[in-house]
Amino acid sequence: MIRQRAASAASLGQKGGLRLGIGDDCALLIPRAGQELAVTTDLSIDGQHFRLNWHQPEVIGHRVLARGLSDLAAMGARPVAAFLSLGLPRSLTKAAGRRSTWIERFLDGFLALAEAHNTPLAGGDLAESTLAVADIILVGAVPRGRALLRSSAKPGDLLYVTGALGGAAAGLARLAKLASPAGPNPPRIPKKLAALLAPHLYPQPRIAQGLWLQRRGKATAALDLSDGLSTDLAHLCEESSVVAEIDASALPIHPAATLEQALHGGEDYELLFTASPATRLPCAIAGVPVTRIGRIMRVRAGRPTMTLISPQGAKPLQARGWEHFC
Amino acid sequence: MIRQRAASAASLGQKGGLRLGIGDDCALLIPRAGQELAVTTDLSIDGQHFRLNWHQPEVIGHRVLARGLSDLAAMGARPVAAFLSLGLPRSLTKAAGRRSTWIERFLDGFLALAEAHNTPLAGGDLAESTLAVADIILVGAVPRGRALLRSSAKPGDLLYVTGALGGAAAGLARLAKLASPAGPNPPRIPKKLAALLAPHLYPQPRIAQGLWLQRRGKATAALDLSDGLSTDLAHLCEESSVVAEIDASALPIHPAATLEQALHGGEDYELLFTASPATRLPCAIAGVPVTRIGRIMRVRAGRPTMTLISPQGAKPLQARGWEHFC
Repeated sequence: MIRQRAASAASLGQKGGLRLGIGDDCALLIPRAGQELAVTTDLSIDGQHFRLNWHQPEVIGHRVLARGLSDLAAMGARPVAAFLSLGLPRSLTKAAGRRSTWIERFLDGFLALAEAHNTPLAGGDLAESTLAVADIILVGAVPRGRALLRSSAKPGDLLYVTGALGGAAAGLARLAKLASPAGPNPPRIPKKLAALLAPHLYPQPRIAQGLWLQRRGKATAALDLSDGLSTDLAHLCEESSVVAEIDASALPIHPAATLEQALHGGEDYELLFTASPATRLPCAIAGVPVTRIGRIMRVRAGRPTMTLISPQGAKPLQARGWEHFC
Repeated sequence: MIRQRAASAASLGQKGGLRLGIGDDCALLIPRAGQELAVTTDLSIDGQHFRLNWHQPEVIGHRVLARGLSDLAAMGARPVAAFLSLGLPRSLTKAAGRRSTWIERFLDGFLALAEAHNTPLAGGDLAESTLAVADIILVGAVPRGRALLRSSAKPGDLLYVTGALGGAAAGLARLAKLASPAGPNPPRIPKKLAALLAPHLYPQPRIAQGLWLQRRGKATAALDLSDGLSTDLAHLCEESSVVAEIDASALPIHPAATLEQALHGGEDYELLFTASPATRLPCAIAGVPVTRIGRIMRVRAGRPTMTLISPQGAKPLQARGWEHFC
């Protein structure tokens, strides 16, 4: 069933480099000359990254794939193929009359996002499991030596983000109020809440923005905001051996979010990137706003890894990103 | 900790095409000109593919990687990089005094096999989970157009296997007797049983044999025996639109195994391949025996997909491969 549904999407892959999809021991990809391949894997687990009784199956399918695509976006890579390993309780794969099964609805969400990003589902695995788990693997292509790394930010660089921050955390908090902790089924989302919950339910991987930055050589370093700004910025600082300063008043906080959610809320899947002060950047890339939020500085004794500047003064910023559902 | 341990193995990858390993949003691979990349994923789940109270952590690490490497072997691909997504209960990652943690011992087994096959661990994910799960992703390289497929066996071809059949099933049956169903810890393996259990505990992916067949163009089709001869041969027949005949007296049955185990036991991870009758094959490839066990025929009305020839006559062979622990 997965093979059939993926096959219709596989034609997507013919141009992109997928020669052989689901059905053999391995899929086969034909790399283009001069390209490197970027590979990422992300494991999503019921109770940790999603909840069967909070999230509709389409939402889980979308979110699982978005997590992987966002890692490609952060490297400035073009998606070539996705692979999906699913471990599911039998009740989620079993047909029940004419109604779509859980796994079919999961694939609806997954394949809709895959199609939007020209990403064929090229393989994977399906096993029975008492706990629902989904491992997503993305393979992308990027011209040799041009991938956006975390480790190449330089003192003096300016710090930017795409989109708005904290929207996913605000949406999750609202969803938690709607969901019944013990009920077996996810809540229906009232129409008036759809926009508020969208950043959490349907995060948009910034593939177009990552490609734009990579192709024009505008960014010195980049990563995606999966664990929260404070945690991911700490990763960038560590990998680049630099420190950073953020201007609280400059943060593009989502209208529904608090400053705390913008600083520490995870899963916004926006891009955090650095650019030389000599680089001119537009105020939006492919329709998504770009905001300068701070700068990169040299490591110096007594200087914290991250500093938050606000009208009340400067204070060290601790990494305390959102730990999923832990 | 995984990053540190993988780093020492990552030097393996420098020649093979791994440019950037663990630490960024993605790993980066540099494909060689004229090569295709083979990608495979396999999900292993506690209670389904291994049991925490049956298998030592080193064994689980070895088996998880062997499953993925075996898929590369079946394509005739050279391993380039491995990726590992682990979902583990906190008790398995927590330090307990000076003793190695479960995850450290898992990595001992995993990295020993990775090193034996020059396969750097290039990335992955680690999450907390109430159920132990491990998804293995392998990327391999094969010259363009030369991968061994399941779909290209031809009527008239002869059918071969590497190694012996049924040893893994026989070893598993013996392990099941040693293990206490309710006990929390895997049994110690008495020395005199080590050889008997080895095919189950430490299956050897046939990378060298797959490469040999691919480089010399000797095989018309191939796959690995993961689900059992009867089930995997049925896959080959279906994908190639052919039928097959097996000679029971020719089967290289493992000394500890029964005919049933050789026909239907899974996880031997030997290669099953076809070759033209004009092709001469040695009796061993890289030290592993190669045995002719049957032949491929045209689909014809009334002819079963698989036929087993024995001194008692010919009878249809049903696919009833081993369904792991189900």
